[in-house]
Amino acid sequence: MMESWSFLDTVESNFRPLVVIELAKGTKEETIEWFTNRIVDKKANGGAQLLIKPLVTENGVENIYLVGASHLRLLLGAEAVGLVKECSDNSMRTFTYSSRKTFKHFADDNHNFLTMAECQYIIKHELENLRAKNEKMIPGYPQAKLYPGKSIVRRLLTSGILVQIFPLHDREELKKLSHSWYGRVKVGYQPLDDIRCYFGETIALYFGFLEYFTFALIPMAVIGIPYYMFAWEDYDKYVMFATFNLLWSTVILEVWKRICAILTYRWGTLLMKRQFEEPRPGFHGVLGINPVTGREEPVYSSIKRQLRIYLVSLPFVCLCLYFSLYVMMIYFDLEQWALDYHKENESNFSSLMLFVPSIIYAVVIEIMNRIYRYAAEFLTSWENHRLESSYQNHLILKVLVFNFLNCFASLFYIAFVLFDMKLLRQSLATLLITSQILNQFAESLLPYWLQKRYNRKMKKRMCSKKTDADLSLAEQVNMEKEMGTYLGTFDDYLELFLQFGYVSLFSCVYPLAAVFAVLNNITEIYSDALKMCRVYKRPFAEPTANIGVWQLAFETMSVISVVTNCILIGMSPEVDALFPDSKMDLVLTVAFVEHLLLAIKFIMAFVIPDKPRDIQVKLAKLEFESLEALKQQ
Amino acid sequence: MMESWSFLDTVESNFRPLVVIELAKGTKEETIEWFTNRIVDKKANGGAQLLIKPLVTENGVENIYLVGASHLRLLLGAEAVGLVKECSDNSMRTFTYSSRKTFKHFADDNHNFLTMAECQYIIKHELENLRAKNEKMIPGYPQAKLYPGKSIVRRLLTSGILVQIFPLHDREELKKLSHSWYGRVKVGYQPLDDIRCYFGETIALYFGFLEYFTFALIPMAVIGIPYYMFAWEDYDKYVMFATFNLLWSTVILEVWKRICAILTYRWGTLLMKRQFEEPRPGFHGVLGINPVTGREEPVYSSIKRQLRIYLVSLPFVCLCLYFSLYVMMIYFDLEQWALDYHKENESNFSSLMLFVPSIIYAVVIEIMNRIYRYAAEFLTSWENHRLESSYQNHLILKVLVFNFLNCFASLFYIAFVLFDMKLLRQSLATLLITSQILNQFAESLLPYWLQKRYNRKMKKRMCSKKTDADLSLAEQVNMEKEMGTYLGTFDDYLELFLQFGYVSLFSCVYPLAAVFAVLNNITEIYSDALKMCRVYKRPFAEPTANIGVWQLAFETMSVISVVTNCILIGMSPEVDALFPDSKMDLVLTVAFVEHLLLAIKFIMAFVIPDKPRDIQVKLAKLEFESLEALKQQ
Repeated sequence: MMESWSFLDTVESNFRPLVVIELAKGTKEETIEWFTNRIVDKKANGGAQLLIKPLVTENGVENIYLVGASHLRLLLGAEAVGLVKECSDNSMRTFTYSSRKTFKHFADDNHNFLTMAECQYIIKHELENLRAKNEKMIPGYPQAKLYPGKSIVRRLLTSGILVQIFPLHDREELKKLSHSWYGRVKVGYQPLDDIRCYFGETIALYFGFLEYFTFALIPMAVIGIPYYMFAWEDYDKYVMFATFNLLWSTVILEVWKRICAILTYRWGTLLMKRQFEEPRPGFHGVLGINPVTGREEPVYSSIKRQLRIYLVSLPFVCLCLYFSLYVMMIYFDLEQWALDYHKENESNFSSLMLFVPSIIYAVVIEIMNRIYRYAAEFLTSWENHRLESSYQNHLILKVLVFNFLNCFASLFYIAFVLFDMKLLRQSLATLLITSQILNQFAESLLPYWLQKRYNRKMKKRMCSKKTDADLSLAEQVNMEKEMGTYLGTFDDYLELFLQFGYVSLFSCVYPLAAVFAVLNNITEIYSDALKMCRVYKRPFAEPTANIGVWQLAFETMSVISVVTNCILIGMSPEVDALFPDSKMDLVLTVAFVEHLLLAIKFIMAFVIPDKPRDIQVKLAKLEFESLEALKQQ
Repeated sequence: MMESWSFLDTVESNFRPLVVIELAKGTKEETIEWFTNRIVDKKANGGAQLLIKPLVTENGVENIYLVGASHLRLLLGAEAVGLVKECSDNSMRTFTYSSRKTFKHFADDNHNFLTMAECQYIIKHELENLRAKNEKMIPGYPQAKLYPGKSIVRRLLTSGILVQIFPLHDREELKKLSHSWYGRVKVGYQPLDDIRCYFGETIALYFGFLEYFTFALIPMAVIGIPYYMFAWEDYDKYVMFATFNLLWSTVILEVWKRICAILTYRWGTLLMKRQFEEPRPGFHGVLGINPVTGREEPVYSSIKRQLRIYLVSLPFVCLCLYFSLYVMMIYFDLEQWALDYHKENESNFSSLMLFVPSIIYAVVIEIMNRIYRYAAEFLTSWENHRLESSYQNHLILKVLVFNFLNCFASLFYIAFVLFDMKLLRQSLATLLITSQILNQFAESLLPYWLQKRYNRKMKKRMCSKKTDADLSLAEQVNMEKEMGTYLGTFDDYLELFLQFGYVSLFSCVYPLAAVFAVLNNITEIYSDALKMCRVYKRPFAEPTANIGVWQLAFETMSVISVVTNCILIGMSPEVDALFPDSKMDLVLTVAFVEHLLLAIKFIMAFVIPDKPRDIQVKLAKLEFESLEALKQQ
């Protein structure tokens, strides 16, 4: 492997396809030639120095290209993206080509040193950082403007010439992974490290959180069952249960931070330096000078963006919230109507009818959430954020606020305006169970079924013509390119967030919620795993060190749940009976307890360290070493 | 200035004394010789490569040494401590010797490029990093053990051989500074940049905060005066005032973060990399291997420390808190007695007597605070924290909790147990004013007066023998070494913290508190300035990027004040009159408003960026540049 650079990069004998590029049908020849040239061109000439090969199918060339890279190129790319790998002495260090010999499992002929997901991430990074030199436009498309430093791939994507870029599945690995993940019925942990190797850190961390959260809910579920079995109508005894829940929810969120640090340290992402963030693909503006980089790039006035946010988005969100409340009031009218109907004609049918409004409302909520989601995406995109992270934060905020109100407003109304605990319990159960069934169906089973049908059709069409070994790859690419695109962990986390709300906000009224959540999450793990392995295209790996804004969202929810549970407890007849003379004392006591619990929560969050001691020591050691190295210079 | 290293460092013609080292009387000759040799020895030999000169007074050599360094040595030291200076293009960059030409005002013959405070900080850093090589003990003192890597100065300090190290004043500069700072009566800002140049960032930031805080209190004071003038007994109208106060206190704390970022960016400390923290001088333990550095140094089991904290310190603090509450109850007995006395023999004397218990209590509180302070210092030191920062955090926590309870418990008791608003106002006024007067006296005027008397005596004794020019320096050193040592900004911040409590916790009862606070702070600026310039030894400059844990303490206080003010408003007769039918509705409304205000506070803290936009851009630019530089490597 010590051949010279230029030699290696032209040899295609060991070409391993990693990433697929699909160009639009009818893309001009000169564009294709220019683009592929830029991809294979030397780094020194401003190229990406990757390997590219057209995919030949039975229909001839279809504007689909396979991208790969030499082993050496990938190692240099790993250094460029700042990958952190384990050394022979078990410490985690940023990989550099010159220190490659010190890393565990490194050998010049070991092509498995970098996982396939890492290789694909490197290629994606290199493609995205392929930048225009002096080109004023994309050859053949004068309307697709370029300027020095503009990412070519992003411009190709926004101008529609590039349809998609996606990493290839590794059929062999996928089979092994899916077998150990969900293929057999077993009790035990998910193979998180294997998931991370195959799908990358963001997705592995989601499954880690899902698993952790499910385990963390088990104590709540276990304690909840006897409450259900022996005292269904007697929610006074839930005081202890609610107090346990409140402290427990704080503890699990704090402990998750520690587990997250352990996982991401092992995966190397805890130490990975944040890369400089380039503008997101959809960002547009007049050409100007970026004050940070000093480069020419589109700039967009921050004041204009603020105006769009506060004068358009904010009123729109408020209007949606109002509309959601309006729908809620209609639901209560329906509920009243069903109750009246049941009173007039008492029958099995009429008692079944009692559940109908809740079910309809649950379905409407799901539909509204989904429609609103599109509106929020459109608005946030229109706000024209420069960075993907800022876009994501604004989107998550919009969606969270609406989903929270939409899902919980009726419960708040029943609990704190109608004071109807029986209706609250019933609504909570209906909403929770309906939304879980709908979610499982819409998220996994439906796409899985559609995909299966499509695959069967494809296979039928292909099998008859299958002749040589290469066709298998073409078949795979053709099948995968039609698969749905996984849009990130947003919806999955949102589902867990709302579930956490159902479990914690009114835990003292309906302790069974935790049981349903646990059951749902166990199937969720399986259906999400199925979704990742069979339904969607393989997503690019995304290094991440934590679950980001979701940690904050879950913590906020647990603060709100302290308030709601304290009020519910205060309203219970048994607590009421403790203060026969003065309702005033009752309210004051409840308020005092609430403040005390909140104070305990904040002190606990402050006292429990976010990282376990051994991770702290390891991080301090690395920092110390880098300071020492700096001194030596 | 392009002479060789070795030449420069032996030339003592341009010796400028910067730091004074005082050894114990009767220190053995061999120790002195070894120590001074280590100080002047080459860096390559493990020395500090500084210049040292014994101070010759009329009594001969007195074991006092003056330390200086060549200009070149100081520049290299500036690189070692990671000083950040302004470049010619107005950006702030970490100083390196090789890039020295790019810095503003740099010239090889400009010895003022580094301020005197910076030079002294560099020398302190170099002295503290003078480490034992193969010495097993300090020569001449077999009981003072050394091991490779142990800081020699710290061992000399703990074994009592080294009495003190302190930086010299610059009489010329000090005169200029004190004139522009407090020498003339003027309206305007303090010369913060000059203060920073002379005393360093920590102290300048304290004065910056004191000034900012005083300005921020002015709106509260201005709004408070008419309330006092026109409606003394009518605290119902304070609802608006309290609401304004609550939001205002959030805003000023958020805005301070931004101002702090502006100041520390300009001073370079915002960008300064955190140095690796060595064990604090008092830390002891058995020799072991530090897991972070891999060096041999004392280690102390973390479990033992936790046991000391939770089994000794925590119970002790609780006992002190109990004692403080006990004293408070005695005060209320006294108060009752004075009231009875006044009723029985109504006279001018008896009405004056009404104030006596409060004044006595205020004095007792101050005394208890001071005694507790020593106990807290002893305990925290006994807990044997490895790092100075950890020691400081534990000390601050202990002192804050006790001071908070000691100062405010009686007010809470009066407000929420006795419900006596008149007494609350009277106690608040007495406590606030008495504590301010006591503080001003004990902190500044008393030491100033003592110092002045001592100086007069010294001068009388000296003047008669004054003959040559060098004696002036000896006189200065002898005078300064007897001056008190400034123990850091802790007490000054604590005073402001308690004052903030008096102003914000019960603002709706006594709006004049802000007026008194403003008046106190204006004199405080002058007396603190006097204290820094005239009473104490010059302190070493300490780079800092923010006010640290105090920001958190002030924010916590402002959260607590939301709760107290909402309760006080709820208790006011006017608000009471709005809910004639149901006290229940009143309490619920108050609780609702409180939660709303808290939510607004947190949202405001979240929405207001901690750094102004231009500082953010400048920081992003530096980060971008360092990432680019890394790529170039």
